[in-house]
Amino acid sequence: MTFQLSEKTFKVPVSLFTDNRQRLAESLKSNVPANSVVLLQGGNETNRYNTDAADLPFRQESYFYWTFGVTENAFFGMFDVATGKTTLLAPRLDPSYAIWDGKINDEKYFKEKYAVDDVVFIDSERTITEQLHKLGAKQVYLLRAQNTDSGDVLAEPKFVGSTEFKIDTDVLYPIIAECRVIKTEKEIDVMRYASKIASEAHRAAMKHMKPGLYEYQLESLFRHTSYYHGGCRHLAYTCIAASGCNGSILHYGHVNAPNDKFIKDGDMCLFDMGPEYSCYASDITTSFPANGKFTEKQKVIYNAVLDANLTVLREAKIGVRWTDMHILSEKVILEHLKKAGLVVGDIDKAVEARLGAVFMPHGLGHFIGLDVHDCGGYLADATPRSTLPGLKSLRTTRTLQERMAITIEPGCYFIDSLLDEALADPVKSAFLVKDEIAKYRGSGGVRIEDDVIIRSSGNENLSDLPRTVEEIENFMASGEWTDKEIESRVQKFLN
Amino acid sequence: MTFQLSEKTFKVPVSLFTDNRQRLAESLKSNVPANSVVLLQGGNETNRYNTDAADLPFRQESYFYWTFGVTENAFFGMFDVATGKTTLLAPRLDPSYAIWDGKINDEKYFKEKYAVDDVVFIDSERTITEQLHKLGAKQVYLLRAQNTDSGDVLAEPKFVGSTEFKIDTDVLYPIIAECRVIKTEKEIDVMRYASKIASEAHRAAMKHMKPGLYEYQLESLFRHTSYYHGGCRHLAYTCIAASGCNGSILHYGHVNAPNDKFIKDGDMCLFDMGPEYSCYASDITTSFPANGKFTEKQKVIYNAVLDANLTVLREAKIGVRWTDMHILSEKVILEHLKKAGLVVGDIDKAVEARLGAVFMPHGLGHFIGLDVHDCGGYLADATPRSTLPGLKSLRTTRTLQERMAITIEPGCYFIDSLLDEALADPVKSAFLVKDEIAKYRGSGGVRIEDDVIIRSSGNENLSDLPRTVEEIENFMASGEWTDKEIESRVQKFLN
Repeated sequence: MTFQLSEKTFKVPVSLFTDNRQRLAESLKSNVPANSVVLLQGGNETNRYNTDAADLPFRQESYFYWTFGVTENAFFGMFDVATGKTTLLAPRLDPSYAIWDGKINDEKYFKEKYAVDDVVFIDSERTITEQLHKLGAKQVYLLRAQNTDSGDVLAEPKFVGSTEFKIDTDVLYPIIAECRVIKTEKEIDVMRYASKIASEAHRAAMKHMKPGLYEYQLESLFRHTSYYHGGCRHLAYTCIAASGCNGSILHYGHVNAPNDKFIKDGDMCLFDMGPEYSCYASDITTSFPANGKFTEKQKVIYNAVLDANLTVLREAKIGVRWTDMHILSEKVILEHLKKAGLVVGDIDKAVEARLGAVFMPHGLGHFIGLDVHDCGGYLADATPRSTLPGLKSLRTTRTLQERMAITIEPGCYFIDSLLDEALADPVKSAFLVKDEIAKYRGSGGVRIEDDVIIRSSGNENLSDLPRTVEEIENFMASGEWTDKEIESRVQKFLN
Repeated sequence: MTFQLSEKTFKVPVSLFTDNRQRLAESLKSNVPANSVVLLQGGNETNRYNTDAADLPFRQESYFYWTFGVTENAFFGMFDVATGKTTLLAPRLDPSYAIWDGKINDEKYFKEKYAVDDVVFIDSERTITEQLHKLGAKQVYLLRAQNTDSGDVLAEPKFVGSTEFKIDTDVLYPIIAECRVIKTEKEIDVMRYASKIASEAHRAAMKHMKPGLYEYQLESLFRHTSYYHGGCRHLAYTCIAASGCNGSILHYGHVNAPNDKFIKDGDMCLFDMGPEYSCYASDITTSFPANGKFTEKQKVIYNAVLDANLTVLREAKIGVRWTDMHILSEKVILEHLKKAGLVVGDIDKAVEARLGAVFMPHGLGHFIGLDVHDCGGYLADATPRSTLPGLKSLRTTRTLQERMAITIEPGCYFIDSLLDEALADPVKSAFLVKDEIAKYRGSGGVRIEDDVIIRSSGNENLSDLPRTVEEIENFMASGEWTDKEIESRVQKFLN
């Protein structure tokens, strides 16, 4: 069986997940003794505070989903490292489930759906232990994963009878996280679809845009297009639908800054929005003028960022360190700003003085996969997290490898607090042309973000959007963008 | 200041919340000694599992929102019961917030926004205690609230220095919950708007409906209409967009039954969906044929449920016990089924045998407010939760009072497992005409749900939808339903 929301959406093969398990087993084999079993716990449904209503339909925990592809809540899964034999443990549902929630599926259903060897319902507190014994487990590997972006820990499962095994919570995390870093072609197929849907939804927003709307109305249209045409019920992150000055608030769109600004003629828009499909994220940013026509000043900033985006896309080759790409993007942007008269002096020295971080305080990009900020950024050959402005915000410092999935998202912003700080700094201020910069203050910012697969044959850009000034102006000036048009574009992509 | 997402949406006055605090203080006064202070903790933002991305923008905890109207996360609030003097405690934000998340607001901003006497940033672990002392607190009332639907507990806040006060966690809950049960006119104004937006979004879905779509596409349109035209970013609960047989799955729409059915010609649709505005919920169900034209069999069931809905709306008077309304709705439905030949015998006896619960296993309705299943259903004069089918699912057994907000949502479903069970039961089967019922199996169900304010002057139905067979057929047959039309309907409502 496969996951596919409907005939109109992408079909995810179950082999994506069996392949993942096999890759994980291969990576583990040399590190573990015989009779080793991996045990993972899936996510549990949660309600809003103490109520009985969920904020959102359940979304599976990413490590568990990667390994087993199970969409339902309250599962456990285990597999024998040597043989690959896999058992899913499903919650025993109360018969009343049939009335309130739908069909109660049996072992056979789940066995076929997830292509596993065995499915057992959790009928006692010893079910997990019994099944571990059945697999002949002596050593059990549990996942304890600290996220390098949030610092939060996904705790290992607790279960009755765990003392009957040798338990390890250290070995599994770096190995499974590393497996997740390098995508298979099957994973990339899903991600390509998610990015395609994101692109179509961004196009819909660009077409619909006109001064006089509110930002949240475009967020709404984006979400609708993603779900209606792409079957993406969940977003990968909170929509940033910024216009005008809000473009300089990097994580705009949350509850305290809820995409509630009136969009004015002359505003630049910065829309950073991405849905997920089958839990695989997209993360795409478009920047464009609300009225469809760039001003000269808007062109300066836009072209600086576009140049940085394209330069990195070209230069981000296998073996290149991501930190160097970050620096490269700063250089390209600063060169443009110099040409436009906002910056003076030697650009290498400006970069050394961390001037780049005044205009781009965030990192150039991050791994993407089942999480929008995917795991593994500080594993393997990563250098330690920098303490310098801009560089400290990098979510990875690794060298690039074949089939890594990473966002390329340079940006250039006019953030008063950072500009004031830099102008007050004797080193940085020497590079800044105060009066020229003043003309750009309050204009927000530009970010151009693509989801990219690193390939030795040339990087694959999963985004599909008008990107040059000319392309954007032409696209926004052309006719209506109907549901029928979007549907036919999605169907063409699928066929 | 007020809460209003944009000029196109409803303006919620801050006095709604100051009134709430005053009502709470009045209710508490006779129950507490001098120098009593109420301390509440607001919600905290959470991320998806161990990641750094939120599933949804933060949504405030309902008790805290009811009392203070604060939309931001990580606040505390306190007020002196005798004087009403109110202090908000706000998190101290890191200066980097200004770059990543937006403007850092000062005390004055929050003081004006929330019309409170004092705002203090939480700079030390003793800030809460210091502010309690400043208010002269000897006795501190904390909220510990067990939800009667989920059984889950909202735990009382823990804070350093709590031993310096007399702490009580019992008194506050029943009193604040009871305050929430009876709505003010200001609260009803917000709920009327939320229900209006829900109604417009349901109309949009009905107009857009045609066989050949998938259920989730209508869910998507509903969400979009609610947000785009109503500013409702959050839903009050997971959308149930059921068609055909899925109409008999009472809580359809969750992850294991994700509105993914292809809608066929001849299907009845049962759409139970409601957005929230300013955290106030709507909860409305429409039932209609996908092709816009009822069959004779669909009319039988639809009219049975509509009659029950209208009868209860008329009879749900002040002093009437909700349990009796549940029984009344069963009777009305069973009378219709008898007339149509599905049921035989004495209807009072059938009700006594709990035959009603075979066709309507859920409760007739529930309190609604800041939570879709609002608090207080088993407080005050409630009789204990029944153990009988149907009646045990009632979320309240209280008698009705002025300005209670409650849903009226009778339904009639053909659920195989319940029908088989009833047919195998000697008592119940005597009332059932097996062959006639067989003709309806697989057809799903009908539910008609309104949000209603109980009023001595005649109940106010907040929903605004075509409801009779004729109204629905005419509405679905009439022309296009454009954004412009919806916008003008919403604006007309607001003016």
